Amino acid sequence: MTTITLAKQAKQASIALAQFGNTQKNQALFAIADALEERCAEILAANQQDIAYAQTQGISPAIIDRLLLTPERIQEIANDVRNVAKLADPVGQIIDGGVLDSGLKIQRQRVPLGVILTIYESRPNVTIDVASLCLKTGNAVILRGGKETKFTNGILVDVVQNALEQAGLPKLAVQAVTDPDRNLLLALLKLDRYIDMLIPRGGAGLHQFCKENSTIPVIVGGIGVCHLYVEQTADLSRAIQVIANAKTQRPSTCNTLETLLVDRAIAERFLPMLAEQLTTLNVTLHSDDFPSELQKNANIQPLDPEKLSQEWLSLDLNVVVVDGIEQAIEHIRTYGSQHSESILTANYALAQQFVQQVDAAAVYINASTRFTDGAQFGLGAEVAVSTQKLHARGPMGLEALTTYKWVCEGDYLTRV
Amino acid sequence: MTTITLAKQAKQASIALAQFGNTQKNQALFAIADALEERCAEILAANQQDIAYAQTQGISPAIIDRLLLTPERIQEIANDVRNVAKLADPVGQIIDGGVLDSGLKIQRQRVPLGVILTIYESRPNVTIDVASLCLKTGNAVILRGGKETKFTNGILVDVVQNALEQAGLPKLAVQAVTDPDRNLLLALLKLDRYIDMLIPRGGAGLHQFCKENSTIPVIVGGIGVCHLYVEQTADLSRAIQVIANAKTQRPSTCNTLETLLVDRAIAERFLPMLAEQLTTLNVTLHSDDFPSELQKNANIQPLDPEKLSQEWLSLDLNVVVVDGIEQAIEHIRTYGSQHSESILTANYALAQQFVQQVDAAAVYINASTRFTDGAQFGLGAEVAVSTQKLHARGPMGLEALTTYKWVCEGDYLTRV
Repeated sequence: MTTITLAKQAKQASIALAQFGNTQKNQALFAIADALEERCAEILAANQQDIAYAQTQGISPAIIDRLLLTPERIQEIANDVRNVAKLADPVGQIIDGGVLDSGLKIQRQRVPLGVILTIYESRPNVTIDVASLCLKTGNAVILRGGKETKFTNGILVDVVQNALEQAGLPKLAVQAVTDPDRNLLLALLKLDRYIDMLIPRGGAGLHQFCKENSTIPVIVGGIGVCHLYVEQTADLSRAIQVIANAKTQRPSTCNTLETLLVDRAIAERFLPMLAEQLTTLNVTLHSDDFPSELQKNANIQPLDPEKLSQEWLSLDLNVVVVDGIEQAIEHIRTYGSQHSESILTANYALAQQFVQQVDAAAVYINASTRFTDGAQFGLGAEVAVSTQKLHARGPMGLEALTTYKWVCEGDYLTRV
Repeated sequence: MTTITLAKQAKQASIALAQFGNTQKNQALFAIADALEERCAEILAANQQDIAYAQTQGISPAIIDRLLLTPERIQEIANDVRNVAKLADPVGQIIDGGVLDSGLKIQRQRVPLGVILTIYESRPNVTIDVASLCLKTGNAVILRGGKETKFTNGILVDVVQNALEQAGLPKLAVQAVTDPDRNLLLALLKLDRYIDMLIPRGGAGLHQFCKENSTIPVIVGGIGVCHLYVEQTADLSRAIQVIANAKTQRPSTCNTLETLLVDRAIAERFLPMLAEQLTTLNVTLHSDDFPSELQKNANIQPLDPEKLSQEWLSLDLNVVVVDGIEQAIEHIRTYGSQHSESILTANYALAQQFVQQVDAAAVYINASTRFTDGAQFGLGAEVAVSTQKLHARGPMGLEALTTYKWVCEGDYLTRV
């Protein structure tokens, strides 16, 4: 099948899907959850094929673990689908409206975007996660997973399509591209006539590739080079609790702390406390600013300037001493990814300055960066975390999968 | 100056500009308006240089008229700037907020986007219009006008920069690219690190060029292939009033009617009425559906199928007879540009079906498509009319020049 056929089918399915209300969309979601449980054995068998292939390719155990499905994981995925069904449907919401001076009655109605394309890598749970969020909001979706999940995704999409068909919804509302050919992907990225939004979920390389090659609007995000600035008036012992949380609670996530900025006025007192407490949590500190006797500590490594603009995604932390808030903000501006940035301070004016001058999706005062998350922010679900400024910024909930339409009524009204 | 220097200067200026409140931004806007009036003679002289050049290039009188400034037009432009100053500033608005279960205090604050790039053609009023809307919302702007307005834009940007400086605002918040080199433009389109949004204002070719070459998010719009469907229960004589308004009130605009769809059930009765009344308004009808005796009328031309997907922007109108609403919607889906679509009907269910199934920025029941406009929709100003679905759809007011930031506060709060 050509990519254009695929995209046209998706557009057709999105038109059909948009006619169904929340009740029917929820029935389909429950049918998908049931089918995932019923066909668990089949799914596990397909997943074993992917695991076996990955092992022959010398893929790392960490990646293989992300790839692996178990009966418990399938149960969790099915439960997540049921949870999505229970969320409020943003489609049909009236954003605002009224009667204009001309007599025109006007309102902005929330409607599905249409067709969403997502490109992702090894996690097979993303397949069901994205499909269920798109269906909930009345969007068709094209899933382009990694070749390492080919068999798993194949069966998952089959499960979803069958469930859709049984629930009376268009089965082509969820389609997968299983051919890993890069040229097919490039062709797909030009189909802005049929595809309304592209959400890449992967590393910085994938995002750059999408920005450069896509004529479909792209939601860039998920890369978090997050900072925490310990200002001199901060409560230092509580500061360490926040730093430890931001770095160690789940190091592989995009809202994890990657670089700590320490005010020079407190560096001498604070750095030894930091070294002592973070090394007991197995954090390796990368810095040239520790006193020389500490620099010999095996858990303290020299700073690699290249790492200042990258995610560690591990128990590693850059530590940089700065001369006050201006330098801290300048550092964040130079190396940050506009994801999540935090200041620890007792100074009200400096807290306000940080919030005002730091340009990021989420800016924190006296809190861990780990809160930047759809569930934590009360959005119910998370489609992605956007680090760009158009359409949606930060954690994207269901609303980010919709657009609006101006609906206007008159009595054969003409413009004067 | 290289494009990267230009873009970096714009980013720096945007950071400085974001620190100023509404009062100071308004002072700068009033200073610009005053300066436009004071330096009117200089501006007219520069404009005459562009006009003289345009005449040597054999540019059409219509384009030359768009290029021409007069004392009255400069006065209007200055008044428009003062009107922008009087609008409410969306920056700083709290979109929503509250306290989460975790104890995190959270709010979404509206903030400027940062740097906006606009590419446009011959109208010099766009230079001041876009600059004032960007300044009002705290954004820096890079203006890339056409080479036919080089001298006029040069002096206008000088006027703006001097006024900014006098008002104590960063003068590089408004910069122009005057070099017409396409390679410079291409380089600029890749600077998404510094430029946050691209608004092309021009024809379909320019929009396509931007979509294909820009890594900066693009707002596509301003192309309106608008339809009006006369359903069989419509009040036919009032229908003609609405059609006449939608076609003739200002034919060169993007919300003008380009194709009329007529229900077959009323075609025999309606088409002669239409021909009689629209030809008296100098409208040329393009259709193969008129009775043969009317097809001989000089104001009725054969339909050119290629024109169905293009804007006429003149007193020309395609007329197509359709077999009911399904075919009307299908026609709109095939040829429309998702701008403005209208149905004239007395049938409630069909009106609802049209609103539900037609995918466009604005959908009308019993009204002229000419209302799709920022001022008509009560937005106070119009940045552009978006025909894409992300970020903003339809007429874009000041709000579309902003994004938001999640501002979060805790008491050394950590995630559990």
